[in-house]
Amino acid sequence: MKYQPPSASASPRFAGIKTFMRLPHVKTTEDVDFAIVGIPFDTGCCYKNGARFGPDAIRISSTLMRNYSMNLDINIFDYLSGVDYGDLDITPGYILESYKQIEEGLQPIIDAGVVPFAMGGDHSITLAELRAVAKKHGPVALVHFDSHLDTWDQYWGQKYAHGTPFRRACEEGLIDTEHSIQVGIRGSQYGPEDVQGSIDLGFDVLTANELHKIGIEEGVKRIQKRVGEAKTFLTFDIDFVDPSMAPGTGTIEVGGFDGYETMTLIQGLRDVNLVATDFVEVLPTIDPSGKTAYMCANVMHEVISILALQKKAGKR
Amino acid sequence: MKYQPPSASASPRFAGIKTFMRLPHVKTTEDVDFAIVGIPFDTGCCYKNGARFGPDAIRISSTLMRNYSMNLDINIFDYLSGVDYGDLDITPGYILESYKQIEEGLQPIIDAGVVPFAMGGDHSITLAELRAVAKKHGPVALVHFDSHLDTWDQYWGQKYAHGTPFRRACEEGLIDTEHSIQVGIRGSQYGPEDVQGSIDLGFDVLTANELHKIGIEEGVKRIQKRVGEAKTFLTFDIDFVDPSMAPGTGTIEVGGFDGYETMTLIQGLRDVNLVATDFVEVLPTIDPSGKTAYMCANVMHEVISILALQKKAGKR
Amino acid sequence: MKYQPPSASASPRFAGIKTFMRLPHVKTTEDVDFAIVGIPFDTGCCYKNGARFGPDAIRISSTLMRNYSMNLDINIFDYLSGVDYGDLDITPGYILESYKQIEEGLQPIIDAGVVPFAMGGDHSITLAELRAVAKKHGPVALVHFDSHLDTWDQYWGQKYAHGTPFRRACEEGLIDTEHSIQVGIRGSQYGPEDVQGSIDLGFDVLTANELHKIGIEEGVKRIQKRVGEAKTFLTFDIDFVDPSMAPGTGTIEVGGFDGYETMTLIQGLRDVNLVATDFVEVLPTIDPSGKTAYMCANVMHEVISILALQKKAGKR
Amino acid sequence: MKYQPPSASASPRFAGIKTFMRLPHVKTTEDVDFAIVGIPFDTGCCYKNGARFGPDAIRISSTLMRNYSMNLDINIFDYLSGVDYGDLDITPGYILESYKQIEEGLQPIIDAGVVPFAMGGDHSITLAELRAVAKKHGPVALVHFDSHLDTWDQYWGQKYAHGTPFRRACEEGLIDTEHSIQVGIRGSQYGPEDVQGSIDLGFDVLTANELHKIGIEEGVKRIQKRVGEAKTFLTFDIDFVDPSMAPGTGTIEVGGFDGYETMTLIQGLRDVNLVATDFVEVLPTIDPSGKTAYMCANVMHEVISILALQKKAGKR
Amino acid sequence: MKYQPPSASASPRFAGIKTFMRLPHVKTTEDVDFAIVGIPFDTGCCYKNGARFGPDAIRISSTLMRNYSMNLDINIFDYLSGVDYGDLDITPGYILESYKQIEEGLQPIIDAGVVPFAMGGDHSITLAELRAVAKKHGPVALVHFDSHLDTWDQYWGQKYAHGTPFRRACEEGLIDTEHSIQVGIRGSQYGPEDVQGSIDLGFDVLTANELHKIGIEEGVKRIQKRVGEAKTFLTFDIDFVDPSMAPGTGTIEVGGFDGYETMTLIQGLRDVNLVATDFVEVLPTIDPSGKTAYMCANVMHEVISILALQKKAGKR
Amino acid sequence: MKYQPPSASASPRFAGIKTFMRLPHVKTTEDVDFAIVGIPFDTGCCYKNGARFGPDAIRISSTLMRNYSMNLDINIFDYLSGVDYGDLDITPGYILESYKQIEEGLQPIIDAGVVPFAMGGDHSITLAELRAVAKKHGPVALVHFDSHLDTWDQYWGQKYAHGTPFRRACEEGLIDTEHSIQVGIRGSQYGPEDVQGSIDLGFDVLTANELHKIGIEEGVKRIQKRVGEAKTFLTFDIDFVDPSMAPGTGTIEVGGFDGYETMTLIQGLRDVNLVATDFVEVLPTIDPSGKTAYMCANVMHEVISILALQKKAGKR
Repeated sequence: MKYQPPSASASPRFAGIKTFMRLPHVKTTEDVDFAIVGIPFDTGCCYKNGARFGPDAIRISSTLMRNYSMNLDINIFDYLSGVDYGDLDITPGYILESYKQIEEGLQPIIDAGVVPFAMGGDHSITLAELRAVAKKHGPVALVHFDSHLDTWDQYWGQKYAHGTPFRRACEEGLIDTEHSIQVGIRGSQYGPEDVQGSIDLGFDVLTANELHKIGIEEGVKRIQKRVGEAKTFLTFDIDFVDPSMAPGTGTIEVGGFDGYETMTLIQGLRDVNLVATDFVEVLPTIDPSGKTAYMCANVMHEVISILALQKKAGKR
Repeated sequence: MKYQPPSASASPRFAGIKTFMRLPHVKTTEDVDFAIVGIPFDTGCCYKNGARFGPDAIRISSTLMRNYSMNLDINIFDYLSGVDYGDLDITPGYILESYKQIEEGLQPIIDAGVVPFAMGGDHSITLAELRAVAKKHGPVALVHFDSHLDTWDQYWGQKYAHGTPFRRACEEGLIDTEHSIQVGIRGSQYGPEDVQGSIDLGFDVLTANELHKIGIEEGVKRIQKRVGEAKTFLTFDIDFVDPSMAPGTGTIEVGGFDGYETMTLIQGLRDVNLVATDFVEVLPTIDPSGKTAYMCANVMHEVISILALQKKAGKR
Repeated sequence: MKYQPPSASASPRFAGIKTFMRLPHVKTTEDVDFAIVGIPFDTGCCYKNGARFGPDAIRISSTLMRNYSMNLDINIFDYLSGVDYGDLDITPGYILESYKQIEEGLQPIIDAGVVPFAMGGDHSITLAELRAVAKKHGPVALVHFDSHLDTWDQYWGQKYAHGTPFRRACEEGLIDTEHSIQVGIRGSQYGPEDVQGSIDLGFDVLTANELHKIGIEEGVKRIQKRVGEAKTFLTFDIDFVDPSMAPGTGTIEVGGFDGYETMTLIQGLRDVNLVATDFVEVLPTIDPSGKTAYMCANVMHEVISILALQKKAGKR
Repeated sequence: MKYQPPSASASPRFAGIKTFMRLPHVKTTEDVDFAIVGIPFDTGCCYKNGARFGPDAIRISSTLMRNYSMNLDINIFDYLSGVDYGDLDITPGYILESYKQIEEGLQPIIDAGVVPFAMGGDHSITLAELRAVAKKHGPVALVHFDSHLDTWDQYWGQKYAHGTPFRRACEEGLIDTEHSIQVGIRGSQYGPEDVQGSIDLGFDVLTANELHKIGIEEGVKRIQKRVGEAKTFLTFDIDFVDPSMAPGTGTIEVGGFDGYETMTLIQGLRDVNLVATDFVEVLPTIDPSGKTAYMCANVMHEVISILALQKKAGKR
Repeated sequence: MKYQPPSASASPRFAGIKTFMRLPHVKTTEDVDFAIVGIPFDTGCCYKNGARFGPDAIRISSTLMRNYSMNLDINIFDYLSGVDYGDLDITPGYILESYKQIEEGLQPIIDAGVVPFAMGGDHSITLAELRAVAKKHGPVALVHFDSHLDTWDQYWGQKYAHGTPFRRACEEGLIDTEHSIQVGIRGSQYGPEDVQGSIDLGFDVLTANELHKIGIEEGVKRIQKRVGEAKTFLTFDIDFVDPSMAPGTGTIEVGGFDGYETMTLIQGLRDVNLVATDFVEVLPTIDPSGKTAYMCANVMHEVISILALQKKAGKR
Repeated sequence: MKYQPPSASASPRFAGIKTFMRLPHVKTTEDVDFAIVGIPFDTGCCYKNGARFGPDAIRISSTLMRNYSMNLDINIFDYLSGVDYGDLDITPGYILESYKQIEEGLQPIIDAGVVPFAMGGDHSITLAELRAVAKKHGPVALVHFDSHLDTWDQYWGQKYAHGTPFRRACEEGLIDTEHSIQVGIRGSQYGPEDVQGSIDLGFDVLTANELHKIGIEEGVKRIQKRVGEAKTFLTFDIDFVDPSMAPGTGTIEVGGFDGYETMTLIQGLRDVNLVATDFVEVLPTIDPSGKTAYMCANVMHEVISILALQKKAGKR
């Protein structure tokens, strides 16, 4: 493939400028299947902030990963070419301005048919990404892993924050909610109207409690059935993962899923028609071991491996 | 309700003086169903100390929680009024003096029929609390979540320390051991006489290994059956939870229970007649992410939600 | 005095709800000389964020302090009554909305002639405070301790951020620059126009290098002479202090001043006519020892002691 | 027994020079059943280094453990005498020189029939230990808990590193691969040839995914069956354990095993004929709670308990 | 010399059981000039506790030091024999019981004319040490480096805590206050009576402010003149050092002394007739770099070097 | 200039792939005045290791710096073009192999007359760099800031480690010791022969104690006089700086120099004819605030500014 990591036998994996998996840092969409894109915007955060340093942390930890997914039996770079596109410009403190920058920054990638792997930043960024995606593809299915619904209407009277992107996206017609699902919801809420709000928007909501009860295997089936053939946006909030594995995020919730469960769920997406993805809310400062960022990098690696499988199978 | 948190839409949850859930800090028992009470005493600690800072940490992390328990489908403040009563006076370094202060400090709450949610501090404080409780209610059932029995006879020749409160309490006739159970016991011991000692005192001991084997659902049944209708003191040592989720405590033990399991167990107490509760051994210094304190705050939230359910059902 | 800390001999200083110096948390201006006010707003931050947790950290660390300043030979509460007013409402992510809330929230304190000790948050908040102050007092002198000028014109095309408040304040006529001074400026700059920009606005700029050369004693004289009798706003950015003592802030700069030098400078303000003060940019997450917050609390304590001295001398 | 920990009732467990479980620090093999040996060598490490401080951390955390294993119902020192032998000399930065020192340092222990519990250091040390063991016992079975195979051929053209010891050991005829098993393998790989490489060397490879699927009970059976009566070397890389419990290691991998699962697996070795053991890759710096080191100490405690059980049963 | 550290060229300094400077751990006073003694008692602590782990931290960090003091031009072990005596037994949570244990534990060292280097633990331990010293030598001069006076009368009505040892010692006639001095006092106080209280007891008090003003050289002279030929107890509280260098202690105070100033002061004690020493209040948990413990170890090293100088000069 | 950082007003300084000052990552020497080069090799380290992560940390923290040095009144990129060349290949665990790689990797930069700013890694790397430099320039003057001499003959019988590079370099004829100086030496030593060893090799040794006594200004003169017009290699070990400012390094020593003193010393090199530089021993893991790396980045920035001054003055 044209763009791939350097050989780990030439220099140790901890060496070199830190791009995702040490991929070439090239701002191009030519001869590229997937593009890593940092979006270090965290102004939408309502509690512990600092996710603006998420992309750095994910990039650094990602260099430990190798090219072959044992889980999916595929070597990514036998089938895919990928770049680290760098970070999009954003304007800290100004969400509307940043939304415009994010949308414009992402558009060329989407338009070129390259699958973006956006790294947040907080979850507010997804609205801007969905705008870029919908401009190209129309409303898309959403597979949303999170402990929070993020379909609240407002925060302190404001429409845009990291707890509201999916309500806004529904209002703007960016999501095909009939094929969309929110997975992992848990923690205290304002009231029963919170989950109901998502259901009313058309989402299927698979709470953490329910997923614990039906098991991962059934969970995978429910996601697959819901999404079907639809063009899909995968949005992965790291607080889906249990705080025991992912303490480094701003609004942890008790009772999540461990690394094995999470990876197994992700592997269940192998037939999903992904057009865009993002991975948000990694807050490295409060996790000295770096395991949160590494968990995120592994999820990204597995999703990329799925793309490789699909390419191998002639499906993309 | 008279006393409840301010609206999170007026100001962000991270703002304001840090009381539990940002409840009003009022030292009253009138129009109050439950009272949060800090007891920052850790002189009884035999290993890593610093649990005197537990109440601060729990209060800070608790502000992330909202009023509605999705697990139990109840909005706490639709049914209950609660205050943050502040901290009881204690005398660091002097356990007998502090016991007196704790007992006296807690008595008005107990006498008023308000359910205290005491936050340790180390586990030695529970003896003083039990004295206050027994003065009002006579011997009570104990539901004790912990990795340690805390029924040892002495430490270095001393009768009072955080490993001995329940033996002392039995000797003083404060516990109705026939309806009491210790749950989660694990880790290395001095000998088989340790568990036997608790059994000889009349406790049912459900070790971590056994609970892992029978499963949480069976565990819940065993606790419920044991406790029955008895007036009950719930004492929750955060080291019940596995160190992967609760590293911030002074004497971690391997092989505990994750957040989902713990919350499910707690939900199983919904028919228990709670007259007092405490939550001990949170040591924040060694947990930069704050997840230990948040785990504790969530357990407290769930127990409060149970009280709300019982109030709703006319049972209190 | 009406409002003062509880006796440290009644309960240990680490106990109790954490207000500044354990002062009563009362939202009043009656019988009050000074009011501690948290403003946990950090949306204006251009680098490491998280100063929204500054007020919590300062409050917690402040409980270690006692009432008597040995440096100034004064017991604060022999002469002053003070409250912890709590935090002002702000809207994370929205600087203009928050400015309005801060100005309105602070106005009653200013109007009552109570000296506010605002705790940031990032330095962008000072503009809103100055608006409230100027509404009452007209343009005021600024004594500004900082490693940065914060008189830049814009950031990424935006007029409001933590690097621009003093240019905006000048434009709005809130500052009497003829009696104002910026002290401690250092670190790399965009160009010589940065310092010149402040000078052009009318400020005296005393760089860190110059202050190191002339010495603290001469520095004190220069500040006193500059300010004279003018009504003065003291704004203290914790990054004035050297990172060796104050690592917990978002934009540290090398070559600052140690604790002794800083305290000596502050003591030099004893004849300054302070009408308002703030203390900003404490970012606790990256300082596990808490020394940054404690440094800030000590500076606040010394300024309060100056007010007490002035009260004793009949000057206020 | 001649050598055992001091009574915890004489002095608190946190007191005293930190040897493993506060065992006597004696460099002897007489009247000794097991010997704790530090090997603080981490030059073989390919990613995050610092495992040279592993022995310190394990020793410190081990003092929290008591003599009786509740899981195995045995008091270690009723049957065994053990010493902390101290650390072997090694030469940081020089792997071949260190291999010689380790082999020579360990030989007297092996030759005396004392079971060594070596604490790394990184996994490269095991090759030298196997040389000492094989000199006495010939090729031995290997029970290898790890997330990595460590049977790669070279790193950056070098034959000796922490990813290659077991290939070298096979080449040198030190391992009876027919009775050997690698358990817990997971994470991204260079390619399918990685696992195949181990299989080609004769190992049974039980990946993490497979172990998760068959369950711990079946896993135990597979290990027991594989090893049979063979003289066995147990090598335990702490990264076998999930990063949620063991974040303090240099090359974490997602999807491992929690504390209860790990301890249950270890208990399954009760009929294995252990002649030597090591426990490697604890990197304390990045785990402020110390839970990684404590996890390791508990695994060691359980293996020692197995030896005690075997001694009690007359099997050693 | 009989007892000295192993050669650093035989094994790296980070290897081996961690005694002070890797000295032999022998509980003897024969052929010994100085003895390192841990006293891990911190029940007297009134704020951040955890100094019970001070001895571990000092021992670990001390292994980085070499035998020759460049400042004093002396190789310690050319003239002195020293051991790490281990820790004294203490009873956590019980100060009077522990005082008895400390006094009894230290007596043999004092009686043998060996100079103890006690490592705390909190400052309450010094009272017990002074009792042992006075039993042998009568009242001794005190050279006391600290930011606090520790001559308060009581804490929460209790006579024994880490803020009261020197008042108690005076009352018990253990200190020759005419030749005693307290150096480095600073921070907020309860009132002017605090310093006056020490003066009334007979101490010379050299505050931090005064020492900053007169300079280190003059400070040395004042100490030397004060102490003269008297038998002297040196007690060094690590919070004497500025928090920028020594953040790891429970009650930091702003405006202390840096490493160079501290070492220069210590070198000024070269003619002091030391009969006993202690070094207290190192709290390692909140200082991830370990610099606080290392600062303490260096002060100890310099004091030992002074003993060596005196031995060389035939003065001991 | 051809290569310079992007405008900070286009995107925030925390955004983007982390190169030094966000310089273009180009492996070229054409149109380049200085080249940043990472050498993440730390196998030579004798105590706390992990400096292999130094280049990452320096790069990340460097993005906070702006282009203009206020101290030297120069905008770097008005006169210089600079690149981040990336990291050199090295072989962890193998010092001789790595030396060859470093020498070969650096040679093209040296040969092109580009000034390298190498970022370690540990101090052992300087020997290889000196070989490359001497091949082009012959023996060069060494300006060596450090708390250690690094002229020891061997460690554990090995000739190559981070404590020996300058003895080896002298033996190989790479250093013009007559014009060389070692500045900042302090801490305990093996004996007086340590400093004498450096003097015997021809170095001028300016110890920390002496520099504290003569003052920075005199120190600058002594360095300038010593070096004169000679082609010079500047090697800066971060442990020159006091641990209060630079705790993140493997072998801290008490009594160093603060940030202002260090920067003033560096500014004193403005007439030195620098041909190569390195900056070593930043160990980020143990410094959560990142101030150590930022201190290092500032020193690099100041040295680059000196090159700019010299270019402006037509001297290069």
